[in-house]
Formats: sequence, C-alpha cells, structure tokens
Amino acid sequence: MTERISSVDLLDVRFPTSRHRDGSDAMNPFPDYSAAYLVLRTTAGAEGHGLVFTVGRGTEIEVAALRSLAPMVIGQPVDDLVSDPGALSRRLIGDSQIRWLGPAKGVVHMAAGGLVNAVWDLAARRAGKPLWQLLAGLTPEEIIAQIDFRYLRDALTEQEALALLRDRAAGRDARAAELLRDGYPAYTTTPGWLGYDDDKLDRLCAEAVGAGYQLIKLKVGGNLADDVRRMGIARRAVGPDIRIAVDANQIWGVPDAIDWMRELSRFDPYWIEEPTSPDDVLGHAAVRRALAPIKVATGEHAHNAVMFKQLLQAGAVDVVQIDACRVGGVNENLAILLLAARFGVPVCPHAGGVGLCELVQHLAMFDYVAVSGSLQDRFIEYVDHLHEHFAEPARISAGRYLAPTAAGMSAEITPASLHTYRFPDGPAWTTEAAA
Amino acid sequence: MTERISSVDLLDVRFPTSRHRDGSDAMNPFPDYSAAYLVLRTTAGAEGHGLVFTVGRGTEIEVAALRSLAPMVIGQPVDDLVSDPGALSRRLIGDSQIRWLGPAKGVVHMAAGGLVNAVWDLAARRAGKPLWQLLAGLTPEEIIAQIDFRYLRDALTEQEALALLRDRAAGRDARAAELLRDGYPAYTTTPGWLGYDDDKLDRLCAEAVGAGYQLIKLKVGGNLADDVRRMGIARRAVGPDIRIAVDANQIWGVPDAIDWMRELSRFDPYWIEEPTSPDDVLGHAAVRRALAPIKVATGEHAHNAVMFKQLLQAGAVDVVQIDACRVGGVNENLAILLLAARFGVPVCPHAGGVGLCELVQHLAMFDYVAVSGSLQDRFIEYVDHLHEHFAEPARISAGRYLAPTAAGMSAEITPASLHTYRFPDGPAWTTEAAA
Repeated sequence: MTERISSVDLLDVRFPTSRHRDGSDAMNPFPDYSAAYLVLRTTAGAEGHGLVFTVGRGTEIEVAALRSLAPMVIGQPVDDLVSDPGALSRRLIGDSQIRWLGPAKGVVHMAAGGLVNAVWDLAARRAGKPLWQLLAGLTPEEIIAQIDFRYLRDALTEQEALALLRDRAAGRDARAAELLRDGYPAYTTTPGWLGYDDDKLDRLCAEAVGAGYQLIKLKVGGNLADDVRRMGIARRAVGPDIRIAVDANQIWGVPDAIDWMRELSRFDPYWIEEPTSPDDVLGHAAVRRALAPIKVATGEHAHNAVMFKQLLQAGAVDVVQIDACRVGGVNENLAILLLAARFGVPVCPHAGGVGLCELVQHLAMFDYVAVSGSLQDRFIEYVDHLHEHFAEPARISAGRYLAPTAAGMSAEITPASLHTYRFPDGPAWTTEAAA
Repeated sequence: MTERISSVDLLDVRFPTSRHRDGSDAMNPFPDYSAAYLVLRTTAGAEGHGLVFTVGRGTEIEVAALRSLAPMVIGQPVDDLVSDPGALSRRLIGDSQIRWLGPAKGVVHMAAGGLVNAVWDLAARRAGKPLWQLLAGLTPEEIIAQIDFRYLRDALTEQEALALLRDRAAGRDARAAELLRDGYPAYTTTPGWLGYDDDKLDRLCAEAVGAGYQLIKLKVGGNLADDVRRMGIARRAVGPDIRIAVDANQIWGVPDAIDWMRELSRFDPYWIEEPTSPDDVLGHAAVRRALAPIKVATGEHAHNAVMFKQLLQAGAVDVVQIDACRVGGVNENLAILLLAARFGVPVCPHAGGVGLCELVQHLAMFDYVAVSGSLQDRFIEYVDHLHEHFAEPARISAGRYLAPTAAGMSAEITPASLHTYRFPDGPAWTTEAAA
C-alpha cells in the first residue's frame, strides 16, 4: 500500500518573551516569540515537522494560511514528496489563485515554506540523516533540479549553478568531516537587545567573549545618545579585536541610516544590519556606498530569491542573511545560497526566534560543504533562548555550532512545550490571563 | 455620546468567473474573481465599505487577516478615524508583532489597505462627497500629513511633495469640472483574455473600437505562435491608430521577456505589462532598456510605495499601474501618486477584478485634479465584468469613465449579491456543488 500524507496537524504556539524584553529591538519592542507549527503525518506513522517563526499577534493568520495550503499535501504519496520536494514547492508557490496574495511573499509564501521544510524534515528522517548531510549527498544535477530558475537566469543559469557545484565537489567529504569535528562559527545577539540595561549589556558582552565568540551583535536605532553609550560599553567590554555588528531592524530611511551610522562609526562596527526597508534594494546600495568599509547585511525579511538576486546585482550587501522560515523553504534557500556564491558574498544566516537556529544550521553547513566551500567571514547567528523546547536543540560549544547528527531538520518541539505554550489555551497563557 | 466603530462585518464573496474563463491570463488560467469584503458599522448607524480583491482560493486567508486586524478599529471614535485615516494606517501597518508577517506586503498589508479604504469610504459618505472630491478638497498640507515618508525621503521629501501639490493648486477647480463634464479616459482589457477564441477576440476588438476606446489590452505569454496570431488579429481589427498594450502577467524571466517581445514588436505594442516577477525592479529596468520604445508597465503586484519608489529610481517603468487593493490603502496610494508625479511618469491604474474599477477611479481622478494635472497618456483600465453587483457601479461612456458623484468610495456590493455569492454557502456555490 502506498504511503501517503494522512494529516497535517497545526498549532499556534507562543512564548511570552515580551515579559523580559528578550528579543526587543527598535521595531519590535515587545515580541512574543511564536510559531505556526505543523506536523505532517503519514499512513505509515512517520512524521515531518515544520514551523513558521512569528512574533506573537498574527500567528493565527499564518496558521490559517497553512490550513488553506495543507490540502495540497494531504493524500500525496510520500515517495513522490520526499524524492522531489521541489515539485511540491512549485505547486504551493505557483497555485494560480493563491499566488494573487503574494506572489512569493508574506503570509502565503511563509506557509509554503513551512510545508516544504516539513517535507524535507520527513525526507531526512526517512534517510536517517540530518538534513545538511542529506543535502550534501545530492549530486549537482539533483540540487539544480530542486530550484526554480524562472526569475533567476539573468543572474544565474542552471549551467552556471552546475559548474559552481561541480567546482566544489572536491573536498566535500573533508569539509563534512571538519564540521562534525569542529562545528561552524557562531555569533551571538544575546548581549545586545534594546530592552536590556547597561549593566546587563556589559556583563553579557564579557560573557560572550569568555564563551569564545568572535562576533557579537547589538540592536540600535532607538535613540542615538543611547546607542553611542551602549556601543561604548560594548566596545570596552569586548576589546578591539572582537567584531561588533549592529542591527537597526529597518527603523531608518536611507539618509537617516547614513547619518546615524556615521555617529557610530568610531566604535568600528563590523556590519549594519537592516538599515532601512527590507524591500529597498537601491536604498541598501546607497547606504553601502556611503558607509564603506562598514558592511551592509540584510536578508531576514528579504521575501524571496528575486530580492536576494537584486541585492547582489546592485552591490547592496556584503553579508547575505538567509532565514529558514521567511522564503519558500529549503528549495528557495538553495537558490539563494547559489546566488550568493555566484557573487562571492558570504552567507551569515539569521537565527534566534523560535527554532531558527535549529533549522538554519542545516543550510549553513550544507553551504560550506557543497556551495561556498569556505568559512571565511561566515557565522551563524545564535541567541540562547527557547532551545529547551526542541527535541534536538542546536548545540553550541566555544562559540561554534556543533553539527547536528540526529535525522531530520531539527524542527521538532517537544510535546510538553507544545502543550504548555499553545495559544490561547495552554497553561502559560491561561495562568497569565488569570494573574 | 461619541460615535464609535461598533463592528466590522467580514464576508468571503466569490464569483465563479472561471466557468467562462473571464479574466484568464498566462498566470491565472482559471480565476474566480473574489473579494474579502468588509463593512465598518458605527454606533450611529453609519457604514464604511471596503474590499480586498482576490482570485478565489485564499480569500479565506485574507478574511482571517481582516479578522485579526479588526480589533484595532473596533471601539475607535469615528471623528478621529475619518479626520486622520493616516494615523490608523500607521497603526495597522506598523503593529510591532503583525509586521513580522510582512512588513508592508502580502496578506496582512492588503488587509490593512482594506480597512483603511473602508475608513475613507466612511469619511467620504460623512462628507457627502465622492472620495475623489473629498481628496481633491484637502490642502497640500493635509495631503502630506496622510503619508508616511519614512522610507521615501531619498526620492521625495515632504517639502518636495508640498511644492509639487502647491504648483498644481492652480486649475484644480477647472479640472474637477472637466471630469464631471467629460470623464476620464479608459482602456479596455475585455477583448484580450487568453482563454477567448480567435473569433471572440476579433469581435471584441472591433466592438472596443466602436465603443470609443483608444487603447486595448491583450494577454500574452502562453504560447508564442498563438500570441503572434492573436496580435495579428487584434492589429487588423483595430487598425494602426489604436494602441494595443500586452500583458504577460509575470510569466517570463528577463531574457525570455526580451526575446518574446522582440517577436511581437512588429505589431507595434504600446506597452508590455508585468514582463517578469513584480519584485524584480532591476529586471524591469533591463527589459525596458532592451525593448525601448516599447513601454514597460507594472504595479498591480508592486506591494508597497518602496517598490514603486525603486521602479522610478531605476528607470524601470514608463507606466505606473496603481491598484486600489494591493497596497496599504488610499494613504499609500497618495504617496505613490506623488512619487510618479515627481518622476514625471504617468499613472494608468490597474482595474477589473471585483470592484477595482469602482475604487481606483477615485484615485485617478484625484491624481488629475491635484497631483499630475494631466491626462496625457493616462487611462484607467476597464473590464466590463461584475459591475452589476455594485451599488454605485463604475460608468463608462464613449471610452471614458464618468466621474462618480455618489458619496463614498463606490465599494459597496449590493445585499443581494453578497447573499448569492458568499462562499461557500451562497446559492451560486451550493447550486454549483449540487450540479
């Protein structure tokens, strides 16, 4: 009997992170880190887990979108899905009616990504491999077949992508072994949330250096005098050799970004992240021209590969920050990794939130093994929140992500946490409401 | 007692247009033109109507988004809302949690636009004026105050916008009177749906010319040989002096768009619309450079003012196609009209669908009276479908939109049509399901 997807369980899960201002930045003063969570179940009892990270209100809209897309997966033969998630990806993103609500952006695109990622989780579990190893074991031709090149060919053709992947074939095994032994460099955003006071900032900066991080990140953009003071504290705490990135979370227009960052330049910021609207490719290019050698980083809100293509074509970014839950899933991220490699720009994934570290580590490690072949100036973001809710949490040691070894994409939240934090009826929320 | 918003009624309304392939194009072979429909009700019994146009599946997601945003309107004093819809617009688009699902794009942005438009409808009803006249009666300072300039100042500052509006103050009354007398030029897409056969195309082209249209539009991009044949039929039917625009609805990558359009250039196409991904500003610019003097038109899927800003900055468009239901409502469209005027690019609104003609005519007429001051190379799209469902349908005569005179934004669908076409339980759908 053919194994098929029998159901897609959907859950709205929210963590009350705003109570301690964990995750607070210039645009997100009080986020409740959340997820629209899904489990694919098969007629043979197998599971694929996925999630779309959100920050509180609106998670119910994302769940509604997943509910609308789920019928495109239910009843499908599992063999077909896991052997070619790209076909599902195209069906979900290309649905001729639902695409009106995007296309390839926002709520519906993130839902498509959640489903596609859950299929990759199922595929990796079936293969008995962590996703990064499953991906790294694909041939260049198999990887190319997973990508929709329709809108990318003016920057990257199938042939160019194939040539790039074949160039990187040498040394794949050695790089995979290196990851298993040494892990992948991380940077930490833990010290720098905007809602933390100066003492906490100072203490957490020192702890980050002690823990082995070579790069830390601070949120900026609330108030210039505060930013100058906080950057001073951070620079004194970490010394001259540790890199400090800053993140404005889209708070500025282009001229504001340039003016504000010139004031902070004396503290030697390594990159400015999201200086303005994530849609503003030309604006990022203008900021980059004005502020060099300060690097420009963006991507957590770049909604699809076409946006990344343009950021690269326009010379708008020094650092490509892929996100596991923003675009249309693993398949679109494969395209983005290849675009970045084609333009020679390093990928430093966005993470934190709920499960972003867990998911995106697989993409970064695949990137190293099969696409970029380099760790130079590459770091995966790390934030030490909420990992305890995951069945296979991301593991950090001496400022590096340890390579995941469990089968799958590490997306599974434990049943206990799903129970406690489901919204609005889990005990974490009903107890709060009563208090 | 202060008049407040007491409720927001929400409805999923779908018209089974796919049965006759009305509205069929290269990306939308079988659309069911639909709307997430809303009615604001006040404690004094007043109403504001709004809608978000959709094409079938997924309308329920848009309704879910409206449901999530509605609490930001319910209970608000009506005086505050109608005197400053911009404040509501900023709250809706800037909500620090919901913006994660955009920001300013897709499902949540369209929902914000639907609510903002409904407030403008309420404001215009209260003022006893059609929206275009309400807007045209605002001072330059009042208009500027309705716009969020945060991400626009590198292309258009408040001061530049003010100067532009003040320049256009002379002649406002004469232009308004001219619109009431002569209407506003229209073009028609009725002949050119991809699903129509050659005889129907030929007949509808001739009818369009007979009806007084100076510009017609054909859908292209399905099959090149078909397009060559259909363009030939259309050109013969309308003669050399009527403009023929073509619309690819995003089907091509950049190189395909250039190659395909070179094959069609012998038929003297006036513009190529949506040649590629609506997100691809640089791609549109490349297409425009390659195909000049064929014009490039886009905008129905440009998701916010930042995208329009870049299309103009990059020299990517000859024709700005605003849409009443894609961006964050009237307020964001005010910004887009001002950007287009600043760059000297004509606005030819996208319409058709459900209610787009009804809504967008107000914006185009305001544009003529107060912003562009010109009708040169300007046309509002017209499609003769579904107007019978509106309480105040758009009216066409001799190829021109007659200026609406009823108070409001013309968004109201009749109770009978809401009853018949509500999805999934209206008779239009239950009868079909039974058949």
